[in-house]
Amino acid sequence: MKQTFDIAPWHVKTTKWSPEDKRLQESMTSLANENLGMRGFFEEGYSADKMEGVYLGGVWFPDKTRVGWWKNGYPKYFGKMINAVNFLKLPITVNGEALDLAKQTPSDFSLDLDMQRGTFTRTFTATVGGAKMRFEFVRFVSAVQKELVGQQVTLTNLSDQAVQLEVTSAIDGDVYNEDANYDEQFWDVLDRQASGQHALLVSKTKPNDFGTPQFTVAMKTTTLTALPHTTDHVADKEVANVFAGELAPQTSLTVEKRTVVATSRDFATEAELLARVDELTTSLADQSFADLLKAHEAEWQARWDKSDVKINGDEGAQQGIRFNLFQLFSTYYGNDYRLNISPKGFTGEKYGGATYWDTEAYCLPVYLGVANPEISRNLLMYRYNQLDGAYINAQEQGLKGALYPMVTFNGIECHNEWEITFEEIHRNGDVAYAIYNYTNYTGDKSYVLHEGAKVLTEISRFWADRVHYSQRANKYMLHGVTGPDEYDNNVNNDWYTNLLCQWTLKYTLEVLAEVDAEVAADLAVTEDEKRHWKSIVDNMYLPYDEERRIFPENDGFMDKDLIPVGEIPSDQLPLNQNWSWDKILRSPYVKQGDVIQGIWDFMDDFTPEEKKRNFDFYEQFTVHESSLSASVYSVIAADIGYEDKAVEMYERSARLDLDNYNNDTADGLHITSMTGSWIDIVQGFAGMRVRDGQLHYAPFLPKKWDSYQFRQQFRGRVIEVTVDKNGAKAELISGEPLTIDLAGEKLELK
Amino acid sequence: MKQTFDIAPWHVKTTKWSPEDKRLQESMTSLANENLGMRGFFEEGYSADKMEGVYLGGVWFPDKTRVGWWKNGYPKYFGKMINAVNFLKLPITVNGEALDLAKQTPSDFSLDLDMQRGTFTRTFTATVGGAKMRFEFVRFVSAVQKELVGQQVTLTNLSDQAVQLEVTSAIDGDVYNEDANYDEQFWDVLDRQASGQHALLVSKTKPNDFGTPQFTVAMKTTTLTALPHTTDHVADKEVANVFAGELAPQTSLTVEKRTVVATSRDFATEAELLARVDELTTSLADQSFADLLKAHEAEWQARWDKSDVKINGDEGAQQGIRFNLFQLFSTYYGNDYRLNISPKGFTGEKYGGATYWDTEAYCLPVYLGVANPEISRNLLMYRYNQLDGAYINAQEQGLKGALYPMVTFNGIECHNEWEITFEEIHRNGDVAYAIYNYTNYTGDKSYVLHEGAKVLTEISRFWADRVHYSQRANKYMLHGVTGPDEYDNNVNNDWYTNLLCQWTLKYTLEVLAEVDAEVAADLAVTEDEKRHWKSIVDNMYLPYDEERRIFPENDGFMDKDLIPVGEIPSDQLPLNQNWSWDKILRSPYVKQGDVIQGIWDFMDDFTPEEKKRNFDFYEQFTVHESSLSASVYSVIAADIGYEDKAVEMYERSARLDLDNYNNDTADGLHITSMTGSWIDIVQGFAGMRVRDGQLHYAPFLPKKWDSYQFRQQFRGRVIEVTVDKNGAKAELISGEPLTIDLAGEKLELK
Repeated sequence: MKQTFDIAPWHVKTTKWSPEDKRLQESMTSLANENLGMRGFFEEGYSADKMEGVYLGGVWFPDKTRVGWWKNGYPKYFGKMINAVNFLKLPITVNGEALDLAKQTPSDFSLDLDMQRGTFTRTFTATVGGAKMRFEFVRFVSAVQKELVGQQVTLTNLSDQAVQLEVTSAIDGDVYNEDANYDEQFWDVLDRQASGQHALLVSKTKPNDFGTPQFTVAMKTTTLTALPHTTDHVADKEVANVFAGELAPQTSLTVEKRTVVATSRDFATEAELLARVDELTTSLADQSFADLLKAHEAEWQARWDKSDVKINGDEGAQQGIRFNLFQLFSTYYGNDYRLNISPKGFTGEKYGGATYWDTEAYCLPVYLGVANPEISRNLLMYRYNQLDGAYINAQEQGLKGALYPMVTFNGIECHNEWEITFEEIHRNGDVAYAIYNYTNYTGDKSYVLHEGAKVLTEISRFWADRVHYSQRANKYMLHGVTGPDEYDNNVNNDWYTNLLCQWTLKYTLEVLAEVDAEVAADLAVTEDEKRHWKSIVDNMYLPYDEERRIFPENDGFMDKDLIPVGEIPSDQLPLNQNWSWDKILRSPYVKQGDVIQGIWDFMDDFTPEEKKRNFDFYEQFTVHESSLSASVYSVIAADIGYEDKAVEMYERSARLDLDNYNNDTADGLHITSMTGSWIDIVQGFAGMRVRDGQLHYAPFLPKKWDSYQFRQQFRGRVIEVTVDKNGAKAELISGEPLTIDLAGEKLELK
Repeated sequence: MKQTFDIAPWHVKTTKWSPEDKRLQESMTSLANENLGMRGFFEEGYSADKMEGVYLGGVWFPDKTRVGWWKNGYPKYFGKMINAVNFLKLPITVNGEALDLAKQTPSDFSLDLDMQRGTFTRTFTATVGGAKMRFEFVRFVSAVQKELVGQQVTLTNLSDQAVQLEVTSAIDGDVYNEDANYDEQFWDVLDRQASGQHALLVSKTKPNDFGTPQFTVAMKTTTLTALPHTTDHVADKEVANVFAGELAPQTSLTVEKRTVVATSRDFATEAELLARVDELTTSLADQSFADLLKAHEAEWQARWDKSDVKINGDEGAQQGIRFNLFQLFSTYYGNDYRLNISPKGFTGEKYGGATYWDTEAYCLPVYLGVANPEISRNLLMYRYNQLDGAYINAQEQGLKGALYPMVTFNGIECHNEWEITFEEIHRNGDVAYAIYNYTNYTGDKSYVLHEGAKVLTEISRFWADRVHYSQRANKYMLHGVTGPDEYDNNVNNDWYTNLLCQWTLKYTLEVLAEVDAEVAADLAVTEDEKRHWKSIVDNMYLPYDEERRIFPENDGFMDKDLIPVGEIPSDQLPLNQNWSWDKILRSPYVKQGDVIQGIWDFMDDFTPEEKKRNFDFYEQFTVHESSLSASVYSVIAADIGYEDKAVEMYERSARLDLDNYNNDTADGLHITSMTGSWIDIVQGFAGMRVRDGQLHYAPFLPKKWDSYQFRQQFRGRVIEVTVDKNGAKAELISGEPLTIDLAGEKLELK
């Protein structure tokens, strides 16, 4: 745990130059706009340890699966979002010496991520080439023009002598992934041009053996500066325009670099792709840096107007929730239904930039509350559009129907640990649950009765084939599964997975009763199938421990050595850094909620006593070594009245990256876990539920806070809820009147 | 299944030229002498598909573990026996055209592995360089001089014109492993010389990151021929002496190549290593090829005198058992206690030439019967000498005591599937059981009361730490294990593993009561430890199904969908080639005996009814997709009077490679499975048991056979047992008189 940045409501800022935190700072100052993004690395170059990363949404490479012992059904490749060509590069020399903070120690240093405006600014003073110079770098990734990245550097000569400046505005195709095997590179450069204000580089991902698309990317830069253009470079993998000249003492100069990036994802031909970068470069030419930035800032303001959460009395919490929403919106704002939310977004290589079940389980609930319903619907469409891949995944396991992947870009499973790929099939239920969640929240049945019915039917066909009948127990069972708690795997009858299987079949039967004749004909669910599904619903085995009156996580769980985690010496935590995998698997320790996850999904289906018993039992074994864990525990704790526990659990997720809680933020941010703080405030502290189409709140105020306030979209309205020491109130900001239930009282909002 | 070779009692021979079976034939005609060996590839070269492989016992390379997701406790490398420098190379040209059977189709072709003599002979006629030529290649790997390989080729000019011959006697260091990642090579050449009759190449394995030894190998060839020496080649990775001249019509010429190979395993310095190859080359110089071959043949004859099994009335079975013993003895004859028996011996790359539990479970029982006890004792010493590695393996899992590895060269685990490495811990019990087996068979307590006591104690310390106490069941349990049946893994309470754990602790306590004071002091087993072990012995949980009165393989087994394998459509077999791993894991199908393996180990501890019930239950689910499976079922079937089943199971393993039963012999032979046929004849058909130090037999004669006869070593005697249609008789071939039990009658043999 380490707090590297100052606490401020709208800023993630530090004035401390700490090269030992370089990677961490790069992660924290990442910017993105769903279509592309990058870590906060230094465009002028930095010759010590760093992790430069530029990523393009939906641009990936299938890395061949290599395992010692092949198992039938293994995916052939692991997809990874590859580090893209570095178009930010902007080396600067002063009197012939390169600016490089690994060599010149800066003073008056600051890094500032402005979350309200969506900008990243760096300022510092350094002596370069014998001259004291001031630098200010500003960067934004446009929230309104998805292809655009703007950079501006202001150079001030603080010395009393003129200096000779050289600024090279480059596009560098010689990039590596840190996670590449054997230092392979993934890009070929197809075209390179550099002349005057402009440089162009066209690159293409290398061919692959798996028939997945190769991506072509065109980047065109425009560099605007009073510094005279002197020359251009066109090298094998790099292009650059060079500007050089004298800067008089005590004067300033700006260099603006804007880049437009287009990829073959959006264009049928390479010619169209190239035309687009030319056209866009031209059309943007009459807007100044300030104009472009202003439009970008206005869009961020509009987002905040819909979704801001205000916390009084705890600036750290205030900063945490805003940082989380800022990074979440940067990663995904639902403009492109082909994209999704990867666990590290555009902030690092880990998890390969792919789509996980995190989207349905943790992100969708937040987008439902903070953004227009179309954004959430696009997340559902993503899965519908990938049904063909899900059929293939099921077939690879010799099973019917659709199996949604654990990790994917195109619908095809591309994770290659068998205990995950083959067994962590609860994800299929989570995709089904998201359809229910969307429908229940928005009241919009247009998806569930059309595309959703198809998705549900094919998932149900998978479940019906995946269960088996135990003659011994006279019950349907699911053997060989891994639940959300990956610290136990290949178990029999994971309670959560069995519950989701049963629920999906039940919900699908309900939906099928509502679809129109055309949809029903297309689905062609036979009466035999329905009877079989009904029989599974009625006879599904769900583990229950009579003695403790709880739901055992799986068949073997209650036989474990049930020592509470509090009795483990603290130097052995986190377990995943200190224990062997063998020891972890056999232990009762829970990585993230499994039974608790199921209770969260079906909160109203359990009595308070049931919830308490299960919470009390599992909480003592849960180590929260998944960043997705604590927020769910917080909601359940709030629900059963454990307010202090709810706040404690909230704090674990709210500032996870700001405080580098798990000591791994250097690798990138925990994007999909960032949803947790919003969920905890709204579902947890405010007790928000949707029951029979009506909003309910049962709020409490964390002891440390003076008040909190959030805005929530609901069925065409924006509602603002404020909770302070005097109680809770709700206000209708926009939309038609509606009735809500606030702390047990019906309230009409107008 | 494909029979490529003719059936003959002492030969594996074919007169059919079938290039489509090239790899299969290479495997089948492998030769080795425990110290080194090679596949039966063509020394003259062959430009179509082949798998050239030369291997040196104990010479290996640690190949870095690469997995997508690291798990704590993973071994850092996978050890592999690497393809060694090819010193057999002997290209031949006739009138300038290279002899290459990929290009010239041979006639009068034969391949002949002579199992009695230990030679591999190839003869054929081919038209090369326009001339009809006859070739006879003879090869042996000396059974008396471990460093020596002899080759001889006789060339006959069948045409009526003189031909221009050129023979190049080479050592080629430019070799690859087929299983290498990214075509890496593993050898650097240190020295190269070639002059006249001699060529020398010294090579060294590349450096590695893991601190395991690099191996230096010196090979020196002597080439003797009437063909004039013309020149020498010294290239980057190859050395050669070239001989060329005319061969008159209708005349013959021989070229003899002998190679001595020494490795740094046997020498402290490189100088000594080089001196050894020089000295040996010189000392062998006065022996002719015939002399060297004669000594080799005499040693093979001595081996057969001690161990031959004669079967009358079934020549296929006769060939099978001899082929199995021949290849087993070639792989290991106990001369070097640092070596062991890898699943493919010197016949292929698969399984990496490393040591598995196969040695203790399947090989030791045969060596006990067919070879001097020192050979078996050396197998036990191998494990004692690797105790330090076993400590490390246990520590890597966070456990006490010693964990013997699943796969190793040096005692350190080097297999990297977690479900095997971390969980298939029954291997530790198999190592313990081998100590009991040796002691019980030989009556020699010198090992068990010294080195063995140490090994048993440290294994017991592991078990005592690995079990946990289930409060719920009031029993000790083993969770998270994989039994011998790898078609189910990460299970709780594998019956076999639990049984071996319990037995090891019990046996160790018995042994500790017998060791002398000095040994006891060294072991330092406390009274607390003993009490704890005793408590585990008394309270170990062993799954039992009350309804079927059988031992369930593990906790979840009886809940599976128990459909007999006979009901699976035959086109879905073998499962491992047709089903996903997911489907296999969830199925009740047994790869190799698990409960049945346990019953084999403790045959006399179960009633005939218990054995029958368990055999009947498991046989219907067992697919025998491990080559180690059928032979154990055969022994149990024989024991419970299922004679036809015993013979059927015997036939699956006896000619496994000769008939290419699993369609994978092209990769190499199933060396450690070859023990099965001997075990089935002796323990199964002849019902041999050792009870209280006395030999018992309960023989039957398979219906198809007229008789069978085997020789068995037992406590200083050689006993010959003959079973024919008139019954069974036993004869003492050498050694002191002893009393045996033959078919229920006491018999004194003199």
